[in-house]
Amino acid sequence: MRNIKLTLSYDGSGYHGWQIQENAITVQEVLENAIMKLTGTKPKLSGCGRTDAGVHAKRYVASFKTESNIPCEKLPCALNRYLPEDIVCINAEDVSDIFDAQRSAKAKTYTYYVLNSQYRDPFLAKHSWHYRYEIDVEKMQKAAKFFEGTHDFIGFAAAGFTVSTTVRTIYSLNVSKENDLIKIEVTGNGFLYNMVRIISGTLVFVGNGKINVEDVADIIESRDRKRAGITAPADGLYLTEVYY
Amino acid sequence: MRNIKLTLSYDGSGYHGWQIQENAITVQEVLENAIMKLTGTKPKLSGCGRTDAGVHAKRYVASFKTESNIPCEKLPCALNRYLPEDIVCINAEDVSDIFDAQRSAKAKTYTYYVLNSQYRDPFLAKHSWHYRYEIDVEKMQKAAKFFEGTHDFIGFAAAGFTVSTTVRTIYSLNVSKENDLIKIEVTGNGFLYNMVRIISGTLVFVGNGKINVEDVADIIESRDRKRAGITAPADGLYLTEVYY
Repeated sequence: MRNIKLTLSYDGSGYHGWQIQENAITVQEVLENAIMKLTGTKPKLSGCGRTDAGVHAKRYVASFKTESNIPCEKLPCALNRYLPEDIVCINAEDVSDIFDAQRSAKAKTYTYYVLNSQYRDPFLAKHSWHYRYEIDVEKMQKAAKFFEGTHDFIGFAAAGFTVSTTVRTIYSLNVSKENDLIKIEVTGNGFLYNMVRIISGTLVFVGNGKINVEDVADIIESRDRKRAGITAPADGLYLTEVYY
Repeated sequence: MRNIKLTLSYDGSGYHGWQIQENAITVQEVLENAIMKLTGTKPKLSGCGRTDAGVHAKRYVASFKTESNIPCEKLPCALNRYLPEDIVCINAEDVSDIFDAQRSAKAKTYTYYVLNSQYRDPFLAKHSWHYRYEIDVEKMQKAAKFFEGTHDFIGFAAAGFTVSTTVRTIYSLNVSKENDLIKIEVTGNGFLYNMVRIISGTLVFVGNGKINVEDVADIIESRDRKRAGITAPADGLYLTEVYY
C-alpha cells in the first residue's frame, strides 16, 4: 500500500470549505471523486486542516493510501483531468506510512488580504475584504507584534471548538501594503477556529482607530472574545503554506 | 440635459461581452438597469467598444444623457449599490454635449495575459490563457516590434466585420514576463474584431517556435489570416485604458 502526499491549490469561492458535508459541495468531496475516477477506488483522504466556506488555498496538503501504481510524476496531470478549473493538483510524492496530512503538520502560514480603497475591485470581489474606511498600516504593524509568541488565544476563537488546549504559538505576524492591498501574513504551529479571521478583524480595527494599539496586549491577555475585533470575511483568507 | 462619462471596471467572466443581445446577459444591460433604478429613466448608453464574451475591463468608458441631478462625485457610490460585485463604477464626470464614449475614443490599451506554467492556476482560470508549452519571451519581444506602426491588419481580423478600412496604427506593443505570467500590452488607435487576440496567439506561436520571428513582417504584409497564429482565448484579455 502506498501513502501519497498531494499538494493542491484551490479557489474556495465556490466551495463550502474542505471537509465533506451533506447537501453542500466541498473540496474534499470533489477531490475524492477525482481520485476515484483515476484509481478506481474511493480514497480515505486526510486534509491538513478544515478551511471555512469561501476560504482559498495557495497550498493545501492532503494524503491518502492507495494500491494504484501511477507514478507520482504523472499523478498531478492525470488527476487534473478530473478536477474542475478551480482546483488543481501541483505536486504528488510517495511518503512514509506514518505520514498523515493532518496529524503530521507542524506549522501553517495563512495570508489575509484587505482591499482598502474607496471603490470595490471586481477582480478581488471573492478574494479580499473590501474595507473602505481609513486604515493606518503602521498601527496594524505595531499591534501585530503583540500576537507573536505563545499565548492562550481563546479570545480569538469562534465558539464551538473542541480542542484540548487553546494555547498556540505564532512564529510571525507581518502586515504590509502594496497599492490598495493590505496583506496580513501569519505563521504559527496551529490555529483555533476562525483565529486568523478574528486576528485580521482586530488588526483592521486597530488600523481604523476603533481599537488602540496600546490595548492589544491586554485584549489578548483578557482572553475575552468580546474585546477583540470582528471576524473578517472568509473571502480574504488564503492558506499559503503547510510545514511538515 | 447632462452628458455623463462613466468609467467602469468589470470582470467579464460571467458576461457575453458589452453589447446588449437577446437571450444572453451583457454588461450594457446590467448597467442600463442599474442606471434606470437610480435615475428612473432607461438611458441610451454609448460604450467605448464591444468586448467579446469573457473579456475583462480594468477601464471601460460609457456615456449617457440624463435629466438626473445626482452630482458626479456621488454617482459611482450610488450606482454601485445597484451593480453586482463583478461590475463597479469608479468615476463619473460631466462632459460636453458632443462627447460620445464610442465615437470620441482616440486610442485604447489592451493587455493580454498568458500563464506559461506546467499546471494551471485556479485563481487565473478565467483570467489568463494557460499555455503549458515552452515559450521564448525574447522571440515574442522581437516579433512584437513588427506590429508597431501603421499597417493593414486585415490578416489579423476575424471574419464578419463591417468597417470601412482595415488599416490601423499600433503605437506600442510590449511583451514582459513576471514569474509564470507573460503580459502582452498593446496601444493603438483602433482594433479590428479579435485583432488583439489574434496578435496574442501569433506572438505565443512565435515564442513556441511554430512561427519564425523573421517571417512576422511578411505575415503582416501578406494580409492572410491563415498565416497568422490562432485566436487566443477571450479569458486572458483586458481592456486597460481608453484615451480621449
